[in-house]
Amino acid sequence: MEYLDDRLTLYGKTDYYPFHMPGHKRRELSFPNPYCIDITEIDGFDNLHHAEGILREAQERAAELYGSERCFYLINGSTCGILTAICAATKKHDKVLVARNSHKAVYHAAELHELNVRYLYPVITETDLQGQITPEQVKEAIQSEPDIRAVVITSPTYEGIISNIKGIIEVAHAYGIPVIVDEAHGAHLGFGGGFPENAIRQGADVVVMSLHKTLPSFTQTALLHLNTGRVSEEEIARYLGIFETSSPSYLLMSGMDACVRMLQEDGEVLFQEYRKRLDSFYKDTADLKKLHVLSVSDFTEGEVFRWDDSKLVIFTGEAGMTGEELHRILLDTYHLQMEMVSAFYVLGMTSIMDTEEGFVRLSAALHEIDAGIRTADSNTSENFTRSMYVRNNSRMQIYQAAEHPCREVGFEEAVGQVSAGYVYFYPPGIPVIVPGEIITQELIGHIREYRDKNLCIEGILNLSEERIKIVYF
Amino acid sequence: MEYLDDRLTLYGKTDYYPFHMPGHKRRELSFPNPYCIDITEIDGFDNLHHAEGILREAQERAAELYGSERCFYLINGSTCGILTAICAATKKHDKVLVARNSHKAVYHAAELHELNVRYLYPVITETDLQGQITPEQVKEAIQSEPDIRAVVITSPTYEGIISNIKGIIEVAHAYGIPVIVDEAHGAHLGFGGGFPENAIRQGADVVVMSLHKTLPSFTQTALLHLNTGRVSEEEIARYLGIFETSSPSYLLMSGMDACVRMLQEDGEVLFQEYRKRLDSFYKDTADLKKLHVLSVSDFTEGEVFRWDDSKLVIFTGEAGMTGEELHRILLDTYHLQMEMVSAFYVLGMTSIMDTEEGFVRLSAALHEIDAGIRTADSNTSENFTRSMYVRNNSRMQIYQAAEHPCREVGFEEAVGQVSAGYVYFYPPGIPVIVPGEIITQELIGHIREYRDKNLCIEGILNLSEERIKIVYF
Repeated sequence: MEYLDDRLTLYGKTDYYPFHMPGHKRRELSFPNPYCIDITEIDGFDNLHHAEGILREAQERAAELYGSERCFYLINGSTCGILTAICAATKKHDKVLVARNSHKAVYHAAELHELNVRYLYPVITETDLQGQITPEQVKEAIQSEPDIRAVVITSPTYEGIISNIKGIIEVAHAYGIPVIVDEAHGAHLGFGGGFPENAIRQGADVVVMSLHKTLPSFTQTALLHLNTGRVSEEEIARYLGIFETSSPSYLLMSGMDACVRMLQEDGEVLFQEYRKRLDSFYKDTADLKKLHVLSVSDFTEGEVFRWDDSKLVIFTGEAGMTGEELHRILLDTYHLQMEMVSAFYVLGMTSIMDTEEGFVRLSAALHEIDAGIRTADSNTSENFTRSMYVRNNSRMQIYQAAEHPCREVGFEEAVGQVSAGYVYFYPPGIPVIVPGEIITQELIGHIREYRDKNLCIEGILNLSEERIKIVYF
Repeated sequence: MEYLDDRLTLYGKTDYYPFHMPGHKRRELSFPNPYCIDITEIDGFDNLHHAEGILREAQERAAELYGSERCFYLINGSTCGILTAICAATKKHDKVLVARNSHKAVYHAAELHELNVRYLYPVITETDLQGQITPEQVKEAIQSEPDIRAVVITSPTYEGIISNIKGIIEVAHAYGIPVIVDEAHGAHLGFGGGFPENAIRQGADVVVMSLHKTLPSFTQTALLHLNTGRVSEEEIARYLGIFETSSPSYLLMSGMDACVRMLQEDGEVLFQEYRKRLDSFYKDTADLKKLHVLSVSDFTEGEVFRWDDSKLVIFTGEAGMTGEELHRILLDTYHLQMEMVSAFYVLGMTSIMDTEEGFVRLSAALHEIDAGIRTADSNTSENFTRSMYVRNNSRMQIYQAAEHPCREVGFEEAVGQVSAGYVYFYPPGIPVIVPGEIITQELIGHIREYRDKNLCIEGILNLSEERIKIVYF
């Protein structure tokens, strides 16, 4: 029997290097014994749900740092921020325009708030990633359905693809429609170091960002920024009161304030140094022969608006190996733990806390692996993503299907039937089908392909028996 | 400008003693630097939302410790456990039977899941606390409305009142109805030390407990226990996937596992010693003249089923002072921080981590204060609670009123109108009105009385301008 703290402590003493979240990269930052500072809403320590003292000041510091009119600490991750933003910006049965490459929390919000969802599909890039959503797409959608009440966009994506948020906001605001940006992967934007501006300074109505993903903050900490006017601050507070615990952790909140302070005091220098290390890494790895580290020049016109190169996307297709194979070699031989793995790439996440040693180790490992690759055969999974993310027809809304009686049937019987739930392919963890959509033969084929490649699939499936849940009429 | 971690660190070095949550009582338990063990779902560390490894084992340890068939770690507090339990146990528009002295999360679940709510009102005790809910009440309610689909009971309450859970379960199960117990204040039950058995071992279908409230675990940590059969494990997992962050904190989870280990290894001895300290305290304070420490003998027949004396309820009514006045003296003069304060009592929470010194300091302080009280006048707020918690008539369901257009009007204009939201009096933080109920002159009077006593009121009020939100037809 091994207890969790023991295994974590042991792991912390190994030489495994984290190219993954959280952004503090397990570095031993100064922090008190957590039990000694873990309190509750006693005199002098305010109340997160009605902040008037030190927690109000802390949130104001975060608002000022990011340029929002109002900032709310989130101690249940970006998840509760997304649920809150969408519920606060809409009435039940409203129509919303949602980028299909959204985190599952977006779909859950639509389910809880009984929304009528229209999708925007991102372009698939030549490198086979999900690309940007354009202002033109948003304009076209709003023009054809003027009763859209909110637009929800994810930028940057897991792979760092940034859409033209300013352009999208201009389009939506021209129609009086609020824009919610899931910037979970972009809390590091807007501090220099060559990274673009954050979405809140570009005028987004609500921006939700995970502090822990790309900055030195504890896992599960996030911020909700509000530019008031189109979305009610009162409704935001009301839904946070529903989706967040009434006993918020002072431990997590202390870590958030410490992160804000670090950015206030040393942000500029930290981001300058980070940029140097990142640039060196990209320069050092430009000569790889078979492996390929994604750079902005790999994108063709219109695929992305900007790209956040803090994400290291390492393609394996030309190297005759899968992402999983590279992942195992990096982990087992080099003790480099990456963030995620796909059929044809691995993804590493970096932050201001990454050390030069970390980047050098990764670069050296990639060169060694690259040099050892004998085959020149390409077994790249060409257009893997493009083929996976087909557009499904929808027969009912998410909330209608989720509430309907359902039953499990064999894959073949399910074709043409209505899905009772979600199926996610990881990465990127975007649903390939949502409740209410019609299951196709093509989808069943892709599920089998993902399974056969040992990639992660989640959802309403019994993979070993090839069964899936359908709505029962 | 003072940062949160600085103020907390400073506070931790003072001699303020915590008669409040969390149950670790700020004692310096061994724990690694939190940044060093705060990771994400990397190889070897499992995934809380699909636990198959070390997190599955950790949850199994907790299930075994408490005697449940299945246990789920909650890292968004009991709040998300309550939302999950009620949504999983019901379909939309189902009818549920709910104790009116429920935490707001219960009402929020009813709002989100569009439930039709029937209330059980607890007896008000001679000591003016909200007492038990009886099996007879539950039976009567179910017999008159057999389409009730779930029963939701809070036991113990904030003040330690325990209902006859076994009796309630027998009644409900006879009709095939699941029982959900909000045992947020009872994670310490069932480990000996003279405390009664927990609700899960008495056969409750779902039990939600805050580990941090009464045990040495970090704030915001809780458990959801399931006895399968009447409530689907799959639905529980589905709703936890909605209400909990997709980035759960390994820091919080480590603390939970450490707490379970402490109970496994040393629980029996710790609870025996705790009982001795508690008994000594009650014995030492039995001779107070004006102040009065609640004991089980203060309850008359039928008011409570059992009482959890880990809660120290200190009445001030005979001492010619309010709860707030005693609270200030204990805090300012004696550096004893209590958990909560009402018009006529203060409440302290204790745990296995309280020291003899802590109890002795409190007893000595109470004796000193008691000896200094000159007046023999009783200005007790007799039947304060009884008068506050009147039964309102309901014109629409919570979810209907919450979605309706609303407007703010003056108190007098609001009488006879439908409330658009909640009003809570603290303590005990139970809503005195919920959305859809009719605002009475009596309620307006109580709001003014609470305000005039400087007690805490929250909700849809503008107190200074005497305005309240009503549904607008």
